[in-house]
Amino acid sequence: MEPAGMAGAVPSTLPGPVRRALLAPLVDHHCHGVRGGALSRAAYERLIAGAGTPPAPGTTHFDTPAGTAVRRWCAPVLGLEPHAPPAVYLARRAELGAEEVNRRLLRAAGVVAFLVDPAEAPDETLSAAEMGRLGGAAADEILSLETVEEEVAREDPAAAGYARALEERLAALAGGAVALKSAVPGRRGLAFDPARPARAAVVAAAGRRLAAPKEPLDDPVLLRHLLWTAAAVAREHGLPLQIHTGYGAPGDQGRDRGYGGRDPALAAGLAEALHPAGVPLILLNCHPYHRGAAHLAAVFPHVYLDLAPPGPAASPASAVGELLDLVPYHKMLFGSHGRGLAESCHLGALHFRRALARALAARLERGEWDAAGAARVAHMIGSDNARRVYRL
Amino acid sequence: MEPAGMAGAVPSTLPGPVRRALLAPLVDHHCHGVRGGALSRAAYERLIAGAGTPPAPGTTHFDTPAGTAVRRWCAPVLGLEPHAPPAVYLARRAELGAEEVNRRLLRAAGVVAFLVDPAEAPDETLSAAEMGRLGGAAADEILSLETVEEEVAREDPAAAGYARALEERLAALAGGAVALKSAVPGRRGLAFDPARPARAAVVAAAGRRLAAPKEPLDDPVLLRHLLWTAAAVAREHGLPLQIHTGYGAPGDQGRDRGYGGRDPALAAGLAEALHPAGVPLILLNCHPYHRGAAHLAAVFPHVYLDLAPPGPAASPASAVGELLDLVPYHKMLFGSHGRGLAESCHLGALHFRRALARALAARLERGEWDAAGAARVAHMIGSDNARRVYRL
Amino acid sequence: MEPAGMAGAVPSTLPGPVRRALLAPLVDHHCHGVRGGALSRAAYERLIAGAGTPPAPGTTHFDTPAGTAVRRWCAPVLGLEPHAPPAVYLARRAELGAEEVNRRLLRAAGVVAFLVDPAEAPDETLSAAEMGRLGGAAADEILSLETVEEEVAREDPAAAGYARALEERLAALAGGAVALKSAVPGRRGLAFDPARPARAAVVAAAGRRLAAPKEPLDDPVLLRHLLWTAAAVAREHGLPLQIHTGYGAPGDQGRDRGYGGRDPALAAGLAEALHPAGVPLILLNCHPYHRGAAHLAAVFPHVYLDLAPPGPAASPASAVGELLDLVPYHKMLFGSHGRGLAESCHLGALHFRRALARALAARLERGEWDAAGAARVAHMIGSDNARRVYRL
Repeated sequence: MEPAGMAGAVPSTLPGPVRRALLAPLVDHHCHGVRGGALSRAAYERLIAGAGTPPAPGTTHFDTPAGTAVRRWCAPVLGLEPHAPPAVYLARRAELGAEEVNRRLLRAAGVVAFLVDPAEAPDETLSAAEMGRLGGAAADEILSLETVEEEVAREDPAAAGYARALEERLAALAGGAVALKSAVPGRRGLAFDPARPARAAVVAAAGRRLAAPKEPLDDPVLLRHLLWTAAAVAREHGLPLQIHTGYGAPGDQGRDRGYGGRDPALAAGLAEALHPAGVPLILLNCHPYHRGAAHLAAVFPHVYLDLAPPGPAASPASAVGELLDLVPYHKMLFGSHGRGLAESCHLGALHFRRALARALAARLERGEWDAAGAARVAHMIGSDNARRVYRL
Repeated sequence: MEPAGMAGAVPSTLPGPVRRALLAPLVDHHCHGVRGGALSRAAYERLIAGAGTPPAPGTTHFDTPAGTAVRRWCAPVLGLEPHAPPAVYLARRAELGAEEVNRRLLRAAGVVAFLVDPAEAPDETLSAAEMGRLGGAAADEILSLETVEEEVAREDPAAAGYARALEERLAALAGGAVALKSAVPGRRGLAFDPARPARAAVVAAAGRRLAAPKEPLDDPVLLRHLLWTAAAVAREHGLPLQIHTGYGAPGDQGRDRGYGGRDPALAAGLAEALHPAGVPLILLNCHPYHRGAAHLAAVFPHVYLDLAPPGPAASPASAVGELLDLVPYHKMLFGSHGRGLAESCHLGALHFRRALARALAARLERGEWDAAGAARVAHMIGSDNARRVYRL
Repeated sequence: MEPAGMAGAVPSTLPGPVRRALLAPLVDHHCHGVRGGALSRAAYERLIAGAGTPPAPGTTHFDTPAGTAVRRWCAPVLGLEPHAPPAVYLARRAELGAEEVNRRLLRAAGVVAFLVDPAEAPDETLSAAEMGRLGGAAADEILSLETVEEEVAREDPAAAGYARALEERLAALAGGAVALKSAVPGRRGLAFDPARPARAAVVAAAGRRLAAPKEPLDDPVLLRHLLWTAAAVAREHGLPLQIHTGYGAPGDQGRDRGYGGRDPALAAGLAEALHPAGVPLILLNCHPYHRGAAHLAAVFPHVYLDLAPPGPAASPASAVGELLDLVPYHKMLFGSHGRGLAESCHLGALHFRRALARALAARLERGEWDAAGAARVAHMIGSDNARRVYRL
């Protein structure tokens, strides 16, 4: 059965097997929870912008690629005409209520499993389990390393016991997680020495850290130490390690100091250092550095990537074709990177299918690929790779 | 009325409102004066190349994207067939004379207002007023910060009085300007500490600076101090601050030390530091880093951008579609970045219209946008945004 | 006569002169030798991946852009149907034998001259002469600077005599070479001080170097010294200097420390420093930084570029159009960057022709170029520029 809301999004001129592969259920290997309660127009606009700031006077955050896409593609899922005006769309949203809106948009995304990153979620954010229930899908949790570290720090261990407390907590939580995730590039960039920090340096840094345990983790030694501890735990539990690159999640920019260090190519040293651990290293976002990320995925057997521009519902359309000329097909994953609004999860899935459809259609039309190969690759990127890497 | 020379450049298959929006008069928010006198073939080639160097033996600067575009699109404006050979084109140019050539090309650009950066203009360069007169348009001046600083330095104030003299001069000139512009990335790159430099450091740097007052400003402390002084003046006068990013104007390369520091993402710290001042920060050029610049424009309410590859008349065609998937529509501006040749102003407007036409046509054809939305966005980017930001 | 295997690769809808220009023999200005002996499937997969590592469990290196292209385009050259399954393709390859496979694929590439970089070739790699013989083409050798340096170091000169021994060896070998090539970005990145190192610093570094003469050259002073010595030799012999940029050859990553320093824009200082020597500086690969490289080629009269993503047979398709809007046509060269497999040389030529065909067809269709201009530019990029720069 074709998922409602997606069938119209994939060109009917594609060969049947390719079209079916594109419409098959996806594994969304990285998303966040969406808000469960009612939203004012101002709150909705802040979420659609991803910036957390109100629109400038005389403008609206609906005048964005995300706004265009919501009006075009989400309006019909809520029973409206395509391109419904913002006020009409928001009125319909209020009329249906958050639960029904979320159910419709998540289900119509055609996702069979959500892997949910619960980090930094504000109140009224749905849990992974609630995402699964509303979306008619399986749901698993991604363990946010910085969140765990901040919990440990707040419990005020002695500096000498910090490393062990952290490792024990990660190990205890890893059993319930499907992956571990680091946001280190959003804190300090990727241009760091990838070597494991020495024990003495960790203890010294922990002493400073524990003097201000309520602050977000920002110490470069401890960020690296966290990565290395996580790699060991990930290896033990057979879990992959996700790492934000590119411009990261839109929530990052508040304390971001790493705008100059977001190129995933800077993670080459880290990839090399972690290679012996045998842990899959998954580069998240990558945009606009996806061409370089494709090189890492080709060169390192344990490196994977997805492709998502920052911001809810921005479209990677022009980049998917660029990537498909470069990346090994078994190294690319789908992640909506949705956050806050069910629209962003829905549009992530829709943009992915449409962009891949466009790239495959062009290759078929030019006689470069055959339909069987195109269908196989659509299945690989859409779900097979994620099933293999995350052992779903 | 459709501007002569542009009507044929925008596909007639576009819906009427979209086509009319694309052909509507533009605000060119950043250009330079063009040369008013006769030009030899050698001088013309140097200008078309933007490099200031003669072509290598056996080659001609007409064998460039700029040369192709001049022959294709400017030749008809001068009454020739498209793709006229270089010698025929230059002969016709000489026959008509500089004044008539400039009048035809500038008028046919369909520009309603030129914002002219007068920095580093050689002799026989038209002033902003002359650009307006020949182009049948309004014209305003952009205040070049480095030019002002170099005037102040040459007047030899005491080091202790340098900061005040600079501020007073900027304040005196700001009243007659439509924006302030910094070329700091062309001097020292963008990878600098964005914090306002301390007064003592400025005085010390001014002492060194004033020992060689005829040199172009190159001191990193004073460049930053200039930016901060300008931000205060801009705030006072309600003016935006333009800043070169990407590979900048082709005139920069002579003393450029910042090739590694041109990514506008490096301006994130500066954007954050200047945010409280409430001054619009306009990233110029951005190419080839426009995808990252789009992220800054989405995240920071006061950040805007335009898109122009370096060099007169290079085409941003492949990049406009990339940008339109990412950037808030009220954050993008049109600037020809024309310089020296009226052809470069004309082709800037033409490339912009053609590239936007192509990007919008593709979105309409794929059913992603509706015609009303496409027309609105064309108006926003082409002139409405500039009218709002520059208070025209 | 149209080269077998290429005629079907260039759209028959192109105007005759453009099609003929695209099918005309190419000068492949940078490739490596291919393997002369039989290859197991495992060995073939490692070569096709370019990574030197086996595929992850459950995957095959045929599930890559290179694998798709081999099955689509090389299979017919070996007498199979397009999209032949990997096992069928490899069986046919074994049946024909390496010599016949190499002959067919190299000849069908339609190359009139191979410029072969012999650096780091494993056993059973064809020499330049053998490449020429099998490919029915002229063949010349590129002198690998690091290879020469490593030979000199192993002969254990005194530290004080190192510089002279190196210069003499380079001068002795330059007479038999068509170009000199540096792999410095694969060793230390491009973010280095471009100035010529002082003699005393070279002697001191040589002392350290000669303590471990069997190690690959990795000292930053000596790498720079090697470049400067090579520039002097290149000038003397009228040879161009090739330099790897972008992500370089796939063989580099083993000891690569420069992932963060691969942007060819970082070579601007070097380009400026070498300008007075009058030696053509040819930026190799450039991808994914080709837009910035185009700027250098436009600004510096002695800078040239080619365009090749890393990895055998990855396609630059989406990038050629980006480049054609920016680069002076007399500054772009064709290089397959083939290595190890004759398929990579063949597909380099095929991807180049197809990508350029697509970019030119789009410009003709949009009325931006005329057929005569398109044909001229195809000849320039395909062979004329190389003949001029390398004095073939």
